[in-house]
Amino acid sequence: MRKDTTNGSSRRDFMQHSGGIALAAALAGYIGESAVATGRTAPSDRVANLVDEMTLEEKVGQMTQMAASEIQSENPAEALRKYKPGSLMYLPSFDPKEVARESNVRQKAMVEDTRLGVPFVYGIDSVHGNNNIQGATIFPHNHGVGAAWDADAAEEMASITSRTMRVTGTHWNFSPVADLQRDPRWGRFYEGFSEDPYLASQLVAAKVRGYEERTNGYKRTGASVKHFAGYSEPANGNDRTSALLPYRTFASTFLPPYAAGITAGAETVMVNSGSLNGVPAHASKELLIDILRDQLGFEGMVVSDWHDFFRMIKVHGFAEDLKEATRLGINAGIDMYMVPAASIEGDDAEGYQRRLIELVDEGSVSMERIDEAVTNILAFKENVGLFDDPYAEPEKVEGVVSEGRDLAREVATESMTMLTNDGTLPLGSDTGSVLVTGPSADSVANQMGGWSLGWQGVGDIEPPATTVLDGISEAAPGSTSVTHVPTGLHELSNEDDVRAAAECADVVVAVLGEGPYAEEQGDTDTLALPDAQRRLVETVAETGTPTVGVIMAGRPRGTSVFDHLSASLMAYLPGTAAGPAVAATLFGDANPSGRLPFTWPKGTGQLLNLHNNFPPDEFNEEGNTEPPQSHETPLFPFGHGMSYTEFEYGNLEVRPPKLPQKAATDELTVSVSVHNTGDRAGETVVPVYGTREHGEVLYPQQVVVGFERVSLDAGETTRVDIRSTVLPLATVLGDVFSRGELVVDTGEYQLSVGDMTETLTVV
Amino acid sequence: MRKDTTNGSSRRDFMQHSGGIALAAALAGYIGESAVATGRTAPSDRVANLVDEMTLEEKVGQMTQMAASEIQSENPAEALRKYKPGSLMYLPSFDPKEVARESNVRQKAMVEDTRLGVPFVYGIDSVHGNNNIQGATIFPHNHGVGAAWDADAAEEMASITSRTMRVTGTHWNFSPVADLQRDPRWGRFYEGFSEDPYLASQLVAAKVRGYEERTNGYKRTGASVKHFAGYSEPANGNDRTSALLPYRTFASTFLPPYAAGITAGAETVMVNSGSLNGVPAHASKELLIDILRDQLGFEGMVVSDWHDFFRMIKVHGFAEDLKEATRLGINAGIDMYMVPAASIEGDDAEGYQRRLIELVDEGSVSMERIDEAVTNILAFKENVGLFDDPYAEPEKVEGVVSEGRDLAREVATESMTMLTNDGTLPLGSDTGSVLVTGPSADSVANQMGGWSLGWQGVGDIEPPATTVLDGISEAAPGSTSVTHVPTGLHELSNEDDVRAAAECADVVVAVLGEGPYAEEQGDTDTLALPDAQRRLVETVAETGTPTVGVIMAGRPRGTSVFDHLSASLMAYLPGTAAGPAVAATLFGDANPSGRLPFTWPKGTGQLLNLHNNFPPDEFNEEGNTEPPQSHETPLFPFGHGMSYTEFEYGNLEVRPPKLPQKAATDELTVSVSVHNTGDRAGETVVPVYGTREHGEVLYPQQVVVGFERVSLDAGETTRVDIRSTVLPLATVLGDVFSRGELVVDTGEYQLSVGDMTETLTVV
Repeated sequence: MRKDTTNGSSRRDFMQHSGGIALAAALAGYIGESAVATGRTAPSDRVANLVDEMTLEEKVGQMTQMAASEIQSENPAEALRKYKPGSLMYLPSFDPKEVARESNVRQKAMVEDTRLGVPFVYGIDSVHGNNNIQGATIFPHNHGVGAAWDADAAEEMASITSRTMRVTGTHWNFSPVADLQRDPRWGRFYEGFSEDPYLASQLVAAKVRGYEERTNGYKRTGASVKHFAGYSEPANGNDRTSALLPYRTFASTFLPPYAAGITAGAETVMVNSGSLNGVPAHASKELLIDILRDQLGFEGMVVSDWHDFFRMIKVHGFAEDLKEATRLGINAGIDMYMVPAASIEGDDAEGYQRRLIELVDEGSVSMERIDEAVTNILAFKENVGLFDDPYAEPEKVEGVVSEGRDLAREVATESMTMLTNDGTLPLGSDTGSVLVTGPSADSVANQMGGWSLGWQGVGDIEPPATTVLDGISEAAPGSTSVTHVPTGLHELSNEDDVRAAAECADVVVAVLGEGPYAEEQGDTDTLALPDAQRRLVETVAETGTPTVGVIMAGRPRGTSVFDHLSASLMAYLPGTAAGPAVAATLFGDANPSGRLPFTWPKGTGQLLNLHNNFPPDEFNEEGNTEPPQSHETPLFPFGHGMSYTEFEYGNLEVRPPKLPQKAATDELTVSVSVHNTGDRAGETVVPVYGTREHGEVLYPQQVVVGFERVSLDAGETTRVDIRSTVLPLATVLGDVFSRGELVVDTGEYQLSVGDMTETLTVV
Repeated sequence: MRKDTTNGSSRRDFMQHSGGIALAAALAGYIGESAVATGRTAPSDRVANLVDEMTLEEKVGQMTQMAASEIQSENPAEALRKYKPGSLMYLPSFDPKEVARESNVRQKAMVEDTRLGVPFVYGIDSVHGNNNIQGATIFPHNHGVGAAWDADAAEEMASITSRTMRVTGTHWNFSPVADLQRDPRWGRFYEGFSEDPYLASQLVAAKVRGYEERTNGYKRTGASVKHFAGYSEPANGNDRTSALLPYRTFASTFLPPYAAGITAGAETVMVNSGSLNGVPAHASKELLIDILRDQLGFEGMVVSDWHDFFRMIKVHGFAEDLKEATRLGINAGIDMYMVPAASIEGDDAEGYQRRLIELVDEGSVSMERIDEAVTNILAFKENVGLFDDPYAEPEKVEGVVSEGRDLAREVATESMTMLTNDGTLPLGSDTGSVLVTGPSADSVANQMGGWSLGWQGVGDIEPPATTVLDGISEAAPGSTSVTHVPTGLHELSNEDDVRAAAECADVVVAVLGEGPYAEEQGDTDTLALPDAQRRLVETVAETGTPTVGVIMAGRPRGTSVFDHLSASLMAYLPGTAAGPAVAATLFGDANPSGRLPFTWPKGTGQLLNLHNNFPPDEFNEEGNTEPPQSHETPLFPFGHGMSYTEFEYGNLEVRPPKLPQKAATDELTVSVSVHNTGDRAGETVVPVYGTREHGEVLYPQQVVVGFERVSLDAGETTRVDIRSTVLPLATVLGDVFSRGELVVDTGEYQLSVGDMTETLTVV
């Protein structure tokens, strides 16, 4: 194994064992150079020997990730000998057995018919379950996982995902996204867990642990935290437009989820396709070496995103040609280039390899850089057991791919976030008839979202799924009749049918939201629901029948529609178990316990109104320091989520109340009494928020510093100990453009649960 | 005089005489320490002697700006001896003679009845003409000045403004705003000239020159470039919320207009009330010393904005109390504190002076800092001739305050920007009847905007004004009848009247837009016109009568309304001469020649889509590099503006085509032939745009590098020589968080007029 924890010389290992708090960036501020090795951990003998043995062509081959479809399964050896690819991606099939067989055919040729027989690592985006394999459970997308505030469940989902991957010959997951949710116009909003760095960090680390769970002495699959870094705040909300971030915000807000993933062991990091502050991330040594390697201590492998050397030319207008782009990218620290398309204006695997060899021959890329990259790649392969066990197990496929059905229902149920309720919910057992309508009531594609047996969502092949219509039909009491009138996402041609059905029903459930999308195709410049859906809700509401809105969307979609709804539920993109999760919540079999992991603005006019913004700088002439409510108050704040019962907090305690600065990485315990004062059992998430006034710099209005999910019977009171930390309030001291270390400053911090606040003093 | 240009020791003087291009920040990159003195210019003997003579109480008095209303005119000496104020602001009167008399009463007591007799400097916001004096001409607000692209006119407006100020005893103008237009939701958008740094710089410098025009050996009034710096991009569009900017963007985009104003001689700089990157600007030594003094070479006086030491406490949550805030602010470089309210939670002149004296006594603020501040203040007073001529001239008031009526009409006319036209405009002499309607057709308040005889706009006293209704009535041919149906900004109660009148008219002119506002009270989260105005336009359009929309607003206000208009004119906030300017344009007596100085987005969902953004990083799987049009294409791009004739460009030439890097501050000449191919004379603005590909960092998609306003008869062709410069493409080299110097890098730059592009090479 590359990382020998007994020698204690790895910065990453040190950080993993020094408190377990996922914020390596903050830790870096406390680790003196004497405490850790500054160099990289030495590679294993096997890796070192392989690098020694390799020709330049073989090394450049390792640094190439190409499409599996470029290697014909009939005669793979010839192409494999030609390209010597270090990695393949995307076999053209969703059939698990076929994928396993096809992977094995190629791997066998790789191992047996190439000079050194180094297996390729096969990678894919399995971002919410193994969403590339027919029959695999599709879990909620990450923003729904964020709403469940349940790291254990996130880890277990990732573990199941990795089992389905490995049996089908897949060793590498381009997941989890460690980018924060900042701008809901962005088409990748749902791929992130939260706008809060701590909540996101906990879930990033959990997914990394789940993917990289050890079996037979090696990591089952390798994770990739992506997209490093600053990707999620494009200047105008459109995917891959430039981001502009000062260092303090970048270091204290954007880096922690990466630090968390790296500290949890992430084998690989994928790079941001966009530019940060005028430099494409793929060309930034500051990002990929100074920050990623030296500051965060990352020792794994760095992979580009899709054809991003090409993007440096035409899109960024940065590099003159592919050769310059390759030089810039490899020298900035890219270990492996993702070049899967047959050719984008000359950007193909063959051309890339030729150019990289020329660059080395000319001395523009050093052999040391090549060897470093190949060492990182081979160490990754060793860590995921490829040298011992490179093959898929087609015979195990059947039992494994269907795993996780119960967990999918559990997480989807935990994520259900009740936004509004006038008492219509839960539906009583005396509900005579329910009309189920809306574009997402019976749409497998819509409940899955993008990256679901298809980049832009479900195509010809459907994943296992119970729709909301089916879920309600199954869950409804025998005395309740269920009718269904489907409508469109963007058109409403059957208004009369809807009205007539609504008039006859006791309650209407309108399942609203978005169709599936991914990446730039999901960019939007409105947060309002499409006009057809607004009209649907108005039509139904006008009948006077109580109407419950269920929103399935990749972001806070819906603005004025809430004015017409008796109750509303955010269901995110719940995946396979949408039906049972929504139905159980509507009928009260489950008590909703999700909390928004992001701020839900009134519209694009409020962006970016994040819960961890610096304090609003508003006061009027009379010295009133209240911000103007009409502009800044969101529709629903971060953490919002209602229950069918009521919880009261009492008796807040922070232990210890004082902490030496050197121990600021230590865990705190925040204890609070939680009392279910209602007449119904329920789960609830108890978030602990932190902030600080009167520091050397401004602090966010609030950040999450701990949370716990608890379950209480009606009338029950329990004392909850929440593991907490002051690290989310680490900041960069100094003036406006300071590029200092991330540190926890001395002074007083306020930790809050509900309306109670206690002080933690760092001395 | 403090600044002796003969000794050549002033960095500012050096910069003023080294090329004349207003971008001191870029120059700073080229001026070696050997070329200029690094220290400040020595004060005059008079100033130095005064500082020597002063007690600490007198010095702290100089550092105080308070409301003139705190000094009773019946017995001013007692209060003046108590506070010893260096500056007063805002006499409670709009009457010019009264202001002059009241100013003189106080000044006389100051000069004659205080120990040293140092006159106070009287300051006020005269931001578009002397908008605090009854009878003074109100010029267009700055965003309209930006649309006129006419620096000479800007200078002349400022000159007229300063004449009306000085005769009324006012020596200091809190103008011009050097903040860039970035986010139209912001309530101060209209106070800025442009989103383009070069266009804004030219107009900032012009206004500074006009305000500070020398008469009798001294500057008539002192200018204040404000609000230093980074104020105009609040994180969520709301006034004074925190701004987040990386250094490259800050230095290359936000600083140039400040550098231009400082190079033009601005005596004072006012500080940003908000925070930048987590540090209140008022507490930032990096902003106020490192950047403002050392990098931009500013040698004048720094004044706070309104009670901003208080704001550091409750609003930013930064300082613990007023004493700490005072220490932080004064030590960061604030020379004078604006503390005009009688008291905001203890923040008043008396308390401020007591606290500052305590801080000096305790050694928390050094006497050197105090002396430096007082020296800056006294040198400013000397430069505006206060020691020789401190008094108002009531007898001259009458002739002076009414100056500038013709200029106001000229600039308003130049600013008129025709957005759309299906041929309805210009109105023919055969137009039988015009219906004038809409909320701003006959509203003096709406055509003035904020800061017009009232902070939030016109109150009881109206400035001189011709409304659009009056202008049309006067300009209409004798055969044309004009009718008027008024409507509300936010309500439409007379739809039937409007419809009936529209049906009878040959053409409808609907004057739409916003009511007056200033600062945070003008923040908005929508760019759509109020619903009542949308309905007005739809009602009129449904009659089939051609409808011309005239928009008077402080920002790009209007979205879907253009779908229903036959033609549309952006009139900005044109001030006194709204009527003649709009009417002349509608009837074709003036040919519209304004160009948008900002991007007009389709809505808040597109923000921030600026013309000088870095290249959009979009490509789809097929390698198509086109950005998705639906998201990024604005409603009207930067520079848009139609004419009643057509202009064609030809034969572009850049001289010299090659420039040594050391001479990158030199002017270039861009020559182009302009041909009026239509049958109507007209003026047009010829903008020259620059960009660069394949640099060490990304460059903006385009920036303005020169412009010229020309007038051509029908059919005429002329050769235009445009003074241009490559300085707007200066950037900070280095990686993502680089804090390097602003430099013009070597390499090829593309300069364009229309669709022609020539290369300029910097070697």
